[in-house]
Amino acid sequence: MSDPLVIAIDSSTSATKAVVVDTTGAVLSSGKADIDLLTPGMDMYEHDPAQWWSSTESAVAQACAALGADERDRIRAICITHQRESFALVDEDGAALRPAILWLDSRAGEEIREYGSEHIHELSGKPADTTPALYKIAWLKKHEPEVLSAAHKLVDVHAYLAHRLVGRWVSAVGSADTLNLLDIANVDYSDELLDIAGVTREQMAELAPPASIIDTINPDILASWGLGPDVVLVAGVGDGQAAGLGTSAIAEDVAYVNIGTSIVAGVHAFEFAYSPAYRTLLGGIPDSFVLEIVQNSGSVLANWFRQELGDPALEGGLDPELDRAAAELEPGTAGLLTVPYWNAVQSPHWDPFAKGIMVGFGSAHTRAHLYRSIIEGMAMELRGNLERVQESSGRRLTELRCTGGGSRNPLYRRIFADATGLPLIVSGVDEVSAQGAAMMAMAAIGAYPDVQTASENMSSFVDKTEPDMAAYEVYGEWAAIQQDIYPALADIFTRINTATKRK
Amino acid sequence: MSDPLVIAIDSSTSATKAVVVDTTGAVLSSGKADIDLLTPGMDMYEHDPAQWWSSTESAVAQACAALGADERDRIRAICITHQRESFALVDEDGAALRPAILWLDSRAGEEIREYGSEHIHELSGKPADTTPALYKIAWLKKHEPEVLSAAHKLVDVHAYLAHRLVGRWVSAVGSADTLNLLDIANVDYSDELLDIAGVTREQMAELAPPASIIDTINPDILASWGLGPDVVLVAGVGDGQAAGLGTSAIAEDVAYVNIGTSIVAGVHAFEFAYSPAYRTLLGGIPDSFVLEIVQNSGSVLANWFRQELGDPALEGGLDPELDRAAAELEPGTAGLLTVPYWNAVQSPHWDPFAKGIMVGFGSAHTRAHLYRSIIEGMAMELRGNLERVQESSGRRLTELRCTGGGSRNPLYRRIFADATGLPLIVSGVDEVSAQGAAMMAMAAIGAYPDVQTASENMSSFVDKTEPDMAAYEVYGEWAAIQQDIYPALADIFTRINTATKRK
Repeated sequence: MSDPLVIAIDSSTSATKAVVVDTTGAVLSSGKADIDLLTPGMDMYEHDPAQWWSSTESAVAQACAALGADERDRIRAICITHQRESFALVDEDGAALRPAILWLDSRAGEEIREYGSEHIHELSGKPADTTPALYKIAWLKKHEPEVLSAAHKLVDVHAYLAHRLVGRWVSAVGSADTLNLLDIANVDYSDELLDIAGVTREQMAELAPPASIIDTINPDILASWGLGPDVVLVAGVGDGQAAGLGTSAIAEDVAYVNIGTSIVAGVHAFEFAYSPAYRTLLGGIPDSFVLEIVQNSGSVLANWFRQELGDPALEGGLDPELDRAAAELEPGTAGLLTVPYWNAVQSPHWDPFAKGIMVGFGSAHTRAHLYRSIIEGMAMELRGNLERVQESSGRRLTELRCTGGGSRNPLYRRIFADATGLPLIVSGVDEVSAQGAAMMAMAAIGAYPDVQTASENMSSFVDKTEPDMAAYEVYGEWAAIQQDIYPALADIFTRINTATKRK
Repeated sequence: MSDPLVIAIDSSTSATKAVVVDTTGAVLSSGKADIDLLTPGMDMYEHDPAQWWSSTESAVAQACAALGADERDRIRAICITHQRESFALVDEDGAALRPAILWLDSRAGEEIREYGSEHIHELSGKPADTTPALYKIAWLKKHEPEVLSAAHKLVDVHAYLAHRLVGRWVSAVGSADTLNLLDIANVDYSDELLDIAGVTREQMAELAPPASIIDTINPDILASWGLGPDVVLVAGVGDGQAAGLGTSAIAEDVAYVNIGTSIVAGVHAFEFAYSPAYRTLLGGIPDSFVLEIVQNSGSVLANWFRQELGDPALEGGLDPELDRAAAELEPGTAGLLTVPYWNAVQSPHWDPFAKGIMVGFGSAHTRAHLYRSIIEGMAMELRGNLERVQESSGRRLTELRCTGGGSRNPLYRRIFADATGLPLIVSGVDEVSAQGAAMMAMAAIGAYPDVQTASENMSSFVDKTEPDMAAYEVYGEWAAIQQDIYPALADIFTRINTATKRK
């Protein structure tokens, strides 16, 4: 098996992408097909699961078609990564009984209040929050009980696609885990959580360890893509955990951070731990956990600022002059502190009613002060959350591996490196979650002895920003103040929410 | 004495204006001369008192020169209103021993902390704050003791100008009161306060009751303006109290509000009262007090917003499109609440470290939401402060008499009327403080039986905005939340101030 290739499928909320990757991590070809977002009602977000498969079929076909026959023959495995926490209800043939309910759907507010608890956090690793499937399945138990009980299987994206590819309902443990139905320390479904959800163990998919070979893929499907008959399906992992692999953030002292629409950061751990600072997930490396920090407002917030408060002539687009002016300001932006909860807060407060706060306005503040303060707010939140991760898991970080749009902007790199006091190393990979799945596939077929080694060899980096430790000290004083603002106002947000609903 | 005219002098921080007014309140002519603001150091603001006189001389000369000889002959009195709390140290000839220290000078932070107390608030009617002279005189006692003890007199603007006009050091009680050296209930200097300041009773000016005739003006000066020899000087009052007279806000159920650079509102009272909601001053009507609300951020804050966060093409100027979009939004601006302390807070918290706060940002908020939220923040502050005035003085307001730039803007009028639940009546007078002084002068020369009657007859109004009481109810819920934000964060501002100073 010389010089094998693998296909990584990344099925996200907006599209499915497929990339063909070699043992060095290089991408030989790719394909992409969109998925329609359905919004049947207030706070409701759904997919037709049939599109999970049709978009996968199309994306892989495009990626394979772009290769020569010799290259197609080198493909040995497919591995899936995907949007997490979303689920479908299907009959024995795999037909959906209702649309899939997605991670960003927030219909289950009452169920979160009813069932969410510290105990469930400890059992599952996941704080009560909008995203996990558990509370939305409990919502179905109440509002659509017949559909729930009629379902042959309740499946995540991985199990849904696996069924199409190999004819069995198999999820990876790090995929099914995101439904919030597992006793995470024992890596098995929890009867208690299944009971809250109102589903039986028989309705759930099999669980495969990460990077294990599930089965050989249906030869008819392989043939339709121009592939030989011996390509296997490798158990993958959710897209967030895959991103940590894709940047090879595996060692105890290394964290990854995706500065994208939202900010997601994390570390790998080999003992279970839980804390309000993060949610705990099963990782893409066998027997690993990922401690994942989630900050809802990343570049979406900077984009909001430019759109609503920037120069109207730029129509919300990038503004190099604004970046330049913001870069010249000192940390702390002359006492203007931002709590970046425009889209509520997950780590570390998990408050769906939280909103953005800016404190310390004076008449000397300019547009650039506000813009910088917003970016500093994100970075100081990350500093606080990383400190909590380090405390809770008894480690000391020395490096941040960085991806996402923000990592390509020098202003963000400077502020994030200085605020966290950590060197910021930017990933050279475009599709970092897909890269993580490709690493798992390469380990599974024996191209590397294990996932860790595959990850070390298939990752690449393009830029390193060293922190200015004097600035780090200054940020420390500001962050201590900034981190105390939300707790002082938590009660205010409940009242704002009540008043807003009354209007 | 048929159809007399009077000259009102308004000597402000930036210029001295003089207006010639008839018994109907009509302005026949005016003059103006600038005063140079001196800024010798951080937080220091001074004037050369010689310019108080030279600008007065020039402004009155211009106003008189614009009249015919017949009109000049009808002038019977001059009355002074002026910037408050500013003071000069002079020798026997009236030459200044050092520059005058102004109300906006904030050098005396330590003295405010050392001497400020609830007791002084009760004794003088004035909460510890940046503006009163008391603390700055105590600063001189420490830093320039020789100058202070060498001074023949320590005088406010009224006494300084009176000395030039009639050769005696005479202040009006409502002028000297702003120095914070009076036992206000007894309308006399307080030995205790003089002792804190480090000045003697002999160093202070005589005190004349409001609207009393002080003396005939030096005939040489009158001749230089083309006036006859029998023009008298009438004891005036500080410009804030004069504004209340200028809008004829005298009845128990009527308040005035100046929506200018800052927002100053108040009522007349005929019994002493004090509260953190307001400062208590001696009024322009004999035996009256003015309960004065001071909110530092008025149109200066809206101007800041347009300058820093508006369309750069407009260069901070008025933006009718922004006003129009803001006018279409509902009260509460979708849960975005502003605490308008950009320039610290006086009523009701008197915290020099306070800064602006915006709470409740979500991604649906637009530029117009922010702009409206800032104006609503000012109006909700006024609502809260007026409620406290009503409680503390046992009255029920039915009307707001309004002046200043904000009163000419329909967006402000709508928001302020709805937020306070009071009809907003806009003054038709341009120079409302000068108008108040003119009313006092007319009463003093017997053109009207008393200041109240002069005020009723010499005021005029151009517009009335009725409140929408349904909107008033909605603002009530938002204001209850908004008023709780600063108290939750008061400690944060002390920390921001400390951190800012360290940088």
